[in-house]
Amino acid sequence: MTKIDHLGIAVKSIAAARGLYESLGLHIVQEETVEHEKVRVAMIPVDESRIELLEPTADDSPVGKFLAKRGEGLHHVALHVDDISATLEALKAKGARLISDEIQIGAGGHLYFFVHPSSAGGVLLEICQDPISYV
Amino acid sequence: MTKIDHLGIAVKSIAAARGLYESLGLHIVQEETVEHEKVRVAMIPVDESRIELLEPTADDSPVGKFLAKRGEGLHHVALHVDDISATLEALKAKGARLISDEIQIGAGGHLYFFVHPSSAGGVLLEICQDPISYV
Repeated sequence: MTKIDHLGIAVKSIAAARGLYESLGLHIVQEETVEHEKVRVAMIPVDESRIELLEPTADDSPVGKFLAKRGEGLHHVALHVDDISATLEALKAKGARLISDEIQIGAGGHLYFFVHPSSAGGVLLEICQDPISYV
Repeated sequence: MTKIDHLGIAVKSIAAARGLYESLGLHIVQEETVEHEKVRVAMIPVDESRIELLEPTADDSPVGKFLAKRGEGLHHVALHVDDISATLEALKAKGARLISDEIQIGAGGHLYFFVHPSSAGGVLLEICQDPISYV
């Protein structure tokens, strides 16, 4: 089943941004730094989805460049699917422009790829799937 | 309980944008024109949330102006809360900048107000609540 997995929001400062969410009864449950992306991520569960506040740790990182160009705001929307390979093939068949047409492995072993904003209504769209378990 | 109610995505053409979502197994279940906002809205359920594609019916509409200035992309994020009045008071107490500090009644009788992007990490944030039922 497809669902909204998370919204990634680029912010200059997690410390400055968190207050708004706390006013809404939402709280950061986990913070981690993703070294190869040079970004600090604060995860805020929202029912079965979550908001991820993304604070760059360097100006030359993807989120750092985004902030310099566009300012704070939504960086990407992540949709969770059950069969990421089938989704990738369906999007390729539709001629969708992808950031990379290979499925990648991210934090916690989850699988993901990105659809370019030009094929997704101006939104950088992440398609993700839970980690594959090998029994 | 707070949840992501919907994502509003500004598009030039619903007809052109829908294909991507259909590739993901998502479908438009309802389309309506909101006359006073000069916008056509296509609703795509995503699990317990939904994506709303927003196509302006006039260039001088809020979404039309957004497209001219920013291009296609995320227009707003809507969070559903159980007690919108308490949320409004909590945000005012925090000094959050609101588009209007009065709760409004929208389509289907739902209640809403908007938080200005400058107080919400660059995201136009809608806070909404289900219609009040009078037994």
